[in-house]
Amino acid sequence: MKDEQYMQMALSLARRGMGMTSPNPMVGAVLVKGGRVVGKGYHRKAGLPHAEVVALNEAGDEARGATLYVNLEPCVHVGRTPPCVNAVIAAGVRRVVVAMLDPNQLMNGMGVDALKKAGVEVRVGLLEAEGKRLNEAFTVYMEKKRPFFTMKGAVSLDGKIATKTCDSKWISNEESRKYVNRLRTAVDGIMVGINTVILDNPLLIPRVARPKKYPVRIVLDSKLRIPLSCDMVKTSEKYKTWVFTSEDSRTDKEARLKSMGLEVIRIPKEENGRVSLKHVCEELFRREMVHILMEGGGEMNSALLREGFADKIILFYAPILIGGKGAYNLIGGKGIDFLKDAYKIDITGLKRFKEDIYLEGYVHRNY
Amino acid sequence: MKDEQYMQMALSLARRGMGMTSPNPMVGAVLVKGGRVVGKGYHRKAGLPHAEVVALNEAGDEARGATLYVNLEPCVHVGRTPPCVNAVIAAGVRRVVVAMLDPNQLMNGMGVDALKKAGVEVRVGLLEAEGKRLNEAFTVYMEKKRPFFTMKGAVSLDGKIATKTCDSKWISNEESRKYVNRLRTAVDGIMVGINTVILDNPLLIPRVARPKKYPVRIVLDSKLRIPLSCDMVKTSEKYKTWVFTSEDSRTDKEARLKSMGLEVIRIPKEENGRVSLKHVCEELFRREMVHILMEGGGEMNSALLREGFADKIILFYAPILIGGKGAYNLIGGKGIDFLKDAYKIDITGLKRFKEDIYLEGYVHRNY
Repeated sequence: MKDEQYMQMALSLARRGMGMTSPNPMVGAVLVKGGRVVGKGYHRKAGLPHAEVVALNEAGDEARGATLYVNLEPCVHVGRTPPCVNAVIAAGVRRVVVAMLDPNQLMNGMGVDALKKAGVEVRVGLLEAEGKRLNEAFTVYMEKKRPFFTMKGAVSLDGKIATKTCDSKWISNEESRKYVNRLRTAVDGIMVGINTVILDNPLLIPRVARPKKYPVRIVLDSKLRIPLSCDMVKTSEKYKTWVFTSEDSRTDKEARLKSMGLEVIRIPKEENGRVSLKHVCEELFRREMVHILMEGGGEMNSALLREGFADKIILFYAPILIGGKGAYNLIGGKGIDFLKDAYKIDITGLKRFKEDIYLEGYVHRNY
Repeated sequence: MKDEQYMQMALSLARRGMGMTSPNPMVGAVLVKGGRVVGKGYHRKAGLPHAEVVALNEAGDEARGATLYVNLEPCVHVGRTPPCVNAVIAAGVRRVVVAMLDPNQLMNGMGVDALKKAGVEVRVGLLEAEGKRLNEAFTVYMEKKRPFFTMKGAVSLDGKIATKTCDSKWISNEESRKYVNRLRTAVDGIMVGINTVILDNPLLIPRVARPKKYPVRIVLDSKLRIPLSCDMVKTSEKYKTWVFTSEDSRTDKEARLKSMGLEVIRIPKEENGRVSLKHVCEELFRREMVHILMEGGGEMNSALLREGFADKIILFYAPILIGGKGAYNLIGGKGIDFLKDAYKIDITGLKRFKEDIYLEGYVHRNY
């Protein structure tokens, strides 16, 4: 086998940690000696050993003289676990192949330098694109000090997310909804606006057989209008729920919500009266939320785009036309005046989900 | 070669007549004898010989004992040209393979019966789906006594056809627009509403190197508001232009428009003051318009859908998001109340046109 195949193996291993590693990246490691895999591992969860260490432990003495394939540069810093670079050197690994450097600017390249200084041969950048894609959320989280936001929408072919009477169950088909439920287990939080809570009464939990996790449910609710009778409030003892509200919203409601198990987080509001997304991002970063799935309506989607926080979009187009000025738009707000100011999307995926169409892309940044 | 391959050849020949045969169907014919093509032809234009006759003429005496492949059942009626069945029998053709029967209910199966009675072996239904697809417009035209309507739209991923300031040039890319221009040469008419004329000032001609035809430009303009200075009016001596208006709109404007080369057609209006689409359809049928391309805005698209006249949709999605309640929708009007009433689309094509997405489908009928 070649370097590339072993790196693919490392990436596959890394993927197994999806949804569980935050605020750490997904990392997989493969140790190869004499054409034989002598150790492999992945990072299962923050606080548990890093991928390299798992692989080294499995290999034992066999690690001496082996090649280590790891999708992310081994760390040099002492965090929740000791630095991996030391362990790699101590084990006598001869060569290290890395897909991407540490996106943390403070650490970037330091692991590689330390390995080289210790006489370890290092190759950097193998399957770098795949590696970066896998840890795109972590990368944005480290670089921008805010969560990576994926905007999800189920729309008709004419871009509507609900009829004028707010009928939206269900626009997308079972296969699309299954995909969304799997996606929910891969993120740290699911965010909606208060209008979505009031109009749709969503539960926002991953409806899969045995969810490996329940992402935090996050509601932006500047006036604390969340109904005490809604499904999210009723299940807040069971599933973590955060409500972001403005500094001057009702304290009696706050006390009531807290007693029911929700956490209420007060942050500044903007001129339009809504909670400041910038402050929401700061708080979510502090709370180590790496990847947030946006399942809100048009107003929230519009605000996310306008503030430049929307990173990725995943749309499910149902083979229907809804029509009408009163129907709910995927993107609300004021909209742009001229086409040159439209948000550009780099479409990276397009396929059929039975009758539905799955589209994924990245919001293109001009800066 | 097998029957199927010869029929493919006949279909390819038929396709060469695209845009030129109305009100006739596209027909191609191949005569094969002893594994050799002895004659072939296609219907070039209404009034010119039918495909079978062209092929028979080419074959001459070689037609005797040959097999005729033709995508549509040979005609038995005396129209602009003599019936083909007689010519086929007279030429001594031994066997006839047909993709589809004549969709004209009055003629359906009669050609085949006549051939069989004359002792000719007949096979019906080979590549029937392809045959029906090719002549889908003609089939609807014959069955419903109205034109086949293809609704075309260039939209953002969120279903907008223009920004709130009406900026729409250009949402779709060059490749998509090229496709639209080719499509324009395949139809008999291009229809828009008066709002599109006022807001966009379109020319609605096929911008291709040497257009084999210019479809009739059709404007629905109940109050005869069409500006005398618009590009369509200014070019109406050169390109045929019909304006449908209500019975009580300004006669002075009508006279002026007529003097400039436009044809003004008065038809009844509906309760909402707009010209009756039903009457437009009747008039277009009388004028032998088989296939109409709808390049109008949201209001016209909505009306076409509501009346059940929209047959096919072709959408070009640009990789942008426009957003905003004030932006122009692909489908305007009042919209539906409940998802169960949404217009269902059978999506038959989905592909990338560089960064754009091309989608085609048929409006699903419940009846």
